[in-house]
Amino acid sequence: MARLAADSYGKSDVRLTKVTRAGDVHQLTEMSVSIELRGDFARCYTDGDNSSIIPTDTQKNTVYALAGKNDFDSIEQFGKILGRHFLDQFSHVTSVSVNIEETLWNRINLNGKPHDHAFIGGSNEGGSNETRTCAVETSHEGTKITGGINGMTVLKTARSGFVGYIKDQYTTLKETTDRIFATIVQASWTYNTLDADFNAAYSSIRDAFIRVFAAHNSLAVQQTLFAMGEEALSVCREIDQVSLTLPNQHRLLVNLQPFGMENPNQIFVPTTEPFGKICGTIRRD
Amino acid sequence: MARLAADSYGKSDVRLTKVTRAGDVHQLTEMSVSIELRGDFARCYTDGDNSSIIPTDTQKNTVYALAGKNDFDSIEQFGKILGRHFLDQFSHVTSVSVNIEETLWNRINLNGKPHDHAFIGGSNEGGSNETRTCAVETSHEGTKITGGINGMTVLKTARSGFVGYIKDQYTTLKETTDRIFATIVQASWTYNTLDADFNAAYSSIRDAFIRVFAAHNSLAVQQTLFAMGEEALSVCREIDQVSLTLPNQHRLLVNLQPFGMENPNQIFVPTTEPFGKICGTIRRD
Amino acid sequence: MARLAADSYGKSDVRLTKVTRAGDVHQLTEMSVSIELRGDFARCYTDGDNSSIIPTDTQKNTVYALAGKNDFDSIEQFGKILGRHFLDQFSHVTSVSVNIEETLWNRINLNGKPHDHAFIGGSNEGGSNETRTCAVETSHEGTKITGGINGMTVLKTARSGFVGYIKDQYTTLKETTDRIFATIVQASWTYNTLDADFNAAYSSIRDAFIRVFAAHNSLAVQQTLFAMGEEALSVCREIDQVSLTLPNQHRLLVNLQPFGMENPNQIFVPTTEPFGKICGTIRRD
Amino acid sequence: MARLAADSYGKSDVRLTKVTRAGDVHQLTEMSVSIELRGDFARCYTDGDNSSIIPTDTQKNTVYALAGKNDFDSIEQFGKILGRHFLDQFSHVTSVSVNIEETLWNRINLNGKPHDHAFIGGSNEGGSNETRTCAVETSHEGTKITGGINGMTVLKTARSGFVGYIKDQYTTLKETTDRIFATIVQASWTYNTLDADFNAAYSSIRDAFIRVFAAHNSLAVQQTLFAMGEEALSVCREIDQVSLTLPNQHRLLVNLQPFGMENPNQIFVPTTEPFGKICGTIRRD
Repeated sequence: MARLAADSYGKSDVRLTKVTRAGDVHQLTEMSVSIELRGDFARCYTDGDNSSIIPTDTQKNTVYALAGKNDFDSIEQFGKILGRHFLDQFSHVTSVSVNIEETLWNRINLNGKPHDHAFIGGSNEGGSNETRTCAVETSHEGTKITGGINGMTVLKTARSGFVGYIKDQYTTLKETTDRIFATIVQASWTYNTLDADFNAAYSSIRDAFIRVFAAHNSLAVQQTLFAMGEEALSVCREIDQVSLTLPNQHRLLVNLQPFGMENPNQIFVPTTEPFGKICGTIRRD
Repeated sequence: MARLAADSYGKSDVRLTKVTRAGDVHQLTEMSVSIELRGDFARCYTDGDNSSIIPTDTQKNTVYALAGKNDFDSIEQFGKILGRHFLDQFSHVTSVSVNIEETLWNRINLNGKPHDHAFIGGSNEGGSNETRTCAVETSHEGTKITGGINGMTVLKTARSGFVGYIKDQYTTLKETTDRIFATIVQASWTYNTLDADFNAAYSSIRDAFIRVFAAHNSLAVQQTLFAMGEEALSVCREIDQVSLTLPNQHRLLVNLQPFGMENPNQIFVPTTEPFGKICGTIRRD
Repeated sequence: MARLAADSYGKSDVRLTKVTRAGDVHQLTEMSVSIELRGDFARCYTDGDNSSIIPTDTQKNTVYALAGKNDFDSIEQFGKILGRHFLDQFSHVTSVSVNIEETLWNRINLNGKPHDHAFIGGSNEGGSNETRTCAVETSHEGTKITGGINGMTVLKTARSGFVGYIKDQYTTLKETTDRIFATIVQASWTYNTLDADFNAAYSSIRDAFIRVFAAHNSLAVQQTLFAMGEEALSVCREIDQVSLTLPNQHRLLVNLQPFGMENPNQIFVPTTEPFGKICGTIRRD
Repeated sequence: MARLAADSYGKSDVRLTKVTRAGDVHQLTEMSVSIELRGDFARCYTDGDNSSIIPTDTQKNTVYALAGKNDFDSIEQFGKILGRHFLDQFSHVTSVSVNIEETLWNRINLNGKPHDHAFIGGSNEGGSNETRTCAVETSHEGTKITGGINGMTVLKTARSGFVGYIKDQYTTLKETTDRIFATIVQASWTYNTLDADFNAAYSSIRDAFIRVFAAHNSLAVQQTLFAMGEEALSVCREIDQVSLTLPNQHRLLVNLQPFGMENPNQIFVPTTEPFGKICGTIRRD
């Protein structure tokens, strides 16, 4: 009557700190790793037969063991190692998804120079709650690597407007040529090579996003999104596609007229919800 | 050089309370609505031309206006109304996704009977942080309605084991025939009709999940997942497919031996992360 | 130049699951325990001398060991055991604060009767995200026990108004005799005996809160708060004081006039912030 | 039988964005303001008599109006303005607590110089999720101003140990002279003048915390806490007292021996809970 149409399983949110030492200088990497396996696991679902099951606890152990055994300098490289391990070790596994989210740490500056072993959360240019992400999909057909950014908060107080949109019976929004544009950038991009310089790519794409966000004369969040994606493709030849989600974190102008006051775009209420959610994928032609 | 390969936009997390009154008896519905539109919006991205844009602020207003204008007794019905509105009103919109998450409210019992207008969060059988969800996809090709549950926390202290799995060089987990099984049910199911009795379906599926979870002799989370899905299909003829995600919210046995104590499955540490994540989709044959 | 004026330290958020078995019927208790010690620890702060320090890791172990060694049927009893342990074992400890937050679990009903070993999150009357709390302060001067509730969400759609308040130059709020009153009850009460029937007290106080909230004709959140506290003192002789915080979780009436519609107290926006925060402590005379 | 022993009320989490413009250069300030009033409000609690009540909605409006009317360059100054307003305007108000939490924004660097109107979340030296806080208590007896920091995440991979502590029957922790020390700084300090240079004080105290955290050879979290507080008092003459809470965000060494591997302080598990919580108040002598 009922059959298993799709299935996957794995360990999520395996948190890992790795410290590597070159003399007195320490490198710090912190991440959360999630693994998802697909393959011939059906009899576990239908019959409780665990003979094909790699326990999620073993998957967790594997993350720690392979982090200790291997040198890697990016989460993308570590994702490749993990995906390859499960695919090679278990013939009944047909594909492996590895998702990694890396916490940003920045060296503390002491007496004008970066400290050897002390760090502060964030990047050297802000980074409130921002993370770096990757997704590595490994199967017998090949490997696909996606890099990304989550939670990059940016805001501009000028050069953003919104006019010329459709007005219907439910429209009350007033056109404006001067509004605050605040968003929390979520982005991912697809590498066209498995041997990219992932860190350089990440940095140049992140810089491109920030640069375009700041400089762009925004007629719509959508337009800024496209310009950010275009610039990312332009600065990094190792990616072919970039997807962006830009939630519009509205700052609403407060009505001060009841108190006999003007409000010349000065006092706003930041709101969390509802929010406009603008999505787009830009591809190299 | 770069082109827009995919796009969508809309308003997310539009929160709504609706009170309907039949004499002294009040009905309370609270939900968060998210709308996503697809269609001919490319020139907004590429040129900042907003002439095809229905502002997300208007989408928000539309949610409130249509909630006021229409009678509906389920989030699925309201989702249909919203999807239909945007598709009918705007010829350049090709598809509309409406996602709704409903907060559970239960009438307070006063003097042994349900109160007319006072409510407590949750359902009448628990419901810590649980919500009811739906996704309605409307396009010119037709409408697809999915119901669901998020955040239903359940736990059993017996009749759960895990043995017979693969042991490799990274396995340290010990087999057990007696462990705690705790999970936070996330489920969705696809209706095979647009005129289902959505509330009855939801209730019978939710009851099926709870009943199977409690009664099942679990050899693996996967097996319980399949049994829950199978029972949902069995009790509700109006759905053809159910997808479940069951995170394994581990309760780890504490080692009390250093203190000269036994721990006969009595003292555990509940952990949030890492967690096993077990997914499956069960389809009617 | 600088001296230590106050200090304390301890382990926070020690999560614990305890299962006790009477034949086939299992009791489930889950909680998070926080311990804070005060005493003669100054030289650790000023000189890094740890010779007076009971490591927070040991405190964690102690929670698990004492949970295994002792029978207790309430978090208050367990708090007393923990506080007494640290005060008795270490002469330089002068006071111990034990704070416990208990997750609510409710037996699943199967075939009309409560299940032996399967549970669902929440209480049998709702309980979305609600917890039970206690604070036990133990010192050589004596012990003070406080019970409490966190996160009890309640809402009423009638018999709540707000009129007759001060109007000044910044007032825009309109008087209303019919508004939604929603709050998330946070309460604590002080026992006047160390041997109270803590579970009975908790249940009767919780019921009192719910009953008064539902039945009260509320002229102000403050008035309902006082009535709830008064009723708690009335139903439980073992407490002398109750403190309540009732955040006013506003439901704002949506203005539908721009769409040519009335809104007869039917469509509201639930908001998280800002919120009114109403606090009061009621004492037995 | 029951009487009101204590009470207060107010509006919490009033979110505010203020943009001030000096030519093309924009200043951005974002904060969340909470107000709590004490005074003669008893009859509202006991009788539902609102004639002494300043609605929390009016308090919210007042925040926005006074933010528009006044120039201020620190949250402390704005807190003083707000506290003074309520105390002066309403003779039955006896004291006002204003708590403000400011979000950090950092100018985006474009072509090597700070942008006029584009910002990224965080500070210029990290600042993951960090905020600046203040508490201003205003009453007829005078005003007390407290500044603070919340959520400053720092971590060091060397020069932290923990030895020489008490061992008892529940101790399993091993002594170490080389551990990771990670914490999330929460601090507040009391100004000894109402006319301090609040921004300069904040910056110098924050820098002091970071500098000491990085450079200190830590024998215990307590010792580092004291050293941080001492340095704050040393660099800022306008404060007399500083309180710090340093949660010990443990990084646990992973046992890789089951896999035949060493773990020379390289691979750790970051944990959120349980956590050591170390508190101290340091006062100028």
